[in-house]
Amino acid sequence: MSTPAPEPTPEPTPAEPPSTEAVTDLLGALAYGSLVAFDRMAADARLAPDLRRRAALSTMAGAEIANYRRLVARLEELGADAAGAMEPFVAALDDFHEATAPRDWLEGLTKAYVGDGIADDFYREIANFLEPGDRSLVLEVLHDTAYTEFAVAEIRAALAADPKLANRLALWARRLVGEAMTQAQRVAAERDGLTDLVVSGSGDLAGIGALFRRLTQAHTDRMGAVGLNT
Amino acid sequence: MSTPAPEPTPEPTPAEPPSTEAVTDLLGALAYGSLVAFDRMAADARLAPDLRRRAALSTMAGAEIANYRRLVARLEELGADAAGAMEPFVAALDDFHEATAPRDWLEGLTKAYVGDGIADDFYREIANFLEPGDRSLVLEVLHDTAYTEFAVAEIRAALAADPKLANRLALWARRLVGEAMTQAQRVAAERDGLTDLVVSGSGDLAGIGALFRRLTQAHTDRMGAVGLNT
Repeated sequence: MSTPAPEPTPEPTPAEPPSTEAVTDLLGALAYGSLVAFDRMAADARLAPDLRRRAALSTMAGAEIANYRRLVARLEELGADAAGAMEPFVAALDDFHEATAPRDWLEGLTKAYVGDGIADDFYREIANFLEPGDRSLVLEVLHDTAYTEFAVAEIRAALAADPKLANRLALWARRLVGEAMTQAQRVAAERDGLTDLVVSGSGDLAGIGALFRRLTQAHTDRMGAVGLNT
Repeated sequence: MSTPAPEPTPEPTPAEPPSTEAVTDLLGALAYGSLVAFDRMAADARLAPDLRRRAALSTMAGAEIANYRRLVARLEELGADAAGAMEPFVAALDDFHEATAPRDWLEGLTKAYVGDGIADDFYREIANFLEPGDRSLVLEVLHDTAYTEFAVAEIRAALAADPKLANRLALWARRLVGEAMTQAQRVAAERDGLTDLVVSGSGDLAGIGALFRRLTQAHTDRMGAVGLNT
């Protein structure tokens, strides 16, 4: 892959309002993503070395459920059946988490940091393609920076104490990204509404390419921030 | 056991303000109770037969974490180390949950209904022995009645569909109460601060007896409300 030139995030310029089908898809994916993230973070919290850290990850999980409720409320407002809207994303998201069950506290935290980071970047991009109400909702259910800071501090401290960990965690992050791409492609192939939203929002193939370069660059920066190579 | 005569809950009449040690014990027990309840409810949510019910139990778990944060904030305000305040209750609460892992959705829901019910009644009684600020906090972190109603509706519907379940669930509830008593006795024997609070708040041995009769009667009523015998 060639090194991408930095590109500015485009201004929100929705050509025409996205279809209800596309918005339902997006909110359904976000909602099930929150529910399953809650579930996994709650389980990963048991890997914490002490009560303070366990509570910190449990609290992050609790925030996912609060987001889940907001997304479901909006789906119902749109006249959609929430469970039906989530259903198309259950297999892909479950498989992602099944394939990336962390073996220890640090893998769990790295997964939350890397995975939530990419997901948030992606949804922040897509938010630009939405009308103002849904755009605000999507931006508001992104992850709190306080949690990112917690994860960054923990990973940095662990690497400072044992620099050899960097290799294992970098490999782990690569596996997370690989699994995420696999499942994202599966969703893209199956969900026309969501795919149309990304394609029409990006404008054209060059626009989609630029979007993916921005996501890749942000991921590289995030890894660098904790001292990990991509 | 003889049938208890109904007794009114006494008015709050704290003879003297409870010691900081006793309050720290109480809040520590409540805080760890919330953290572990979060953890177990999140796990039990996976037993749900559909996404709607899974989300409902996950949301109940999320409320536990919100309560946990309030309790920890108060502990820190009192100058206590939150992890240290919780530590004495970790073994008893973990052992309780270890011994009462539900095998299915209905057992999980019955556990939440019966266990939270008894715990709430107990903490509501103890709240009477506290000063106004802590009393309000303890009363506010009790479980939301919306969740009780959800559990009642689910258990009733399951029993209506299959009356033979009543026997199994009644046995299950008896085991829950037995395990809870075992662990409560262990805590009472080990934690003088908390025990003193209950003893001095109740006034005398007769007062403690009356408190336990009220808890027993409320449990019997709760079981009756879903059609289960004690």
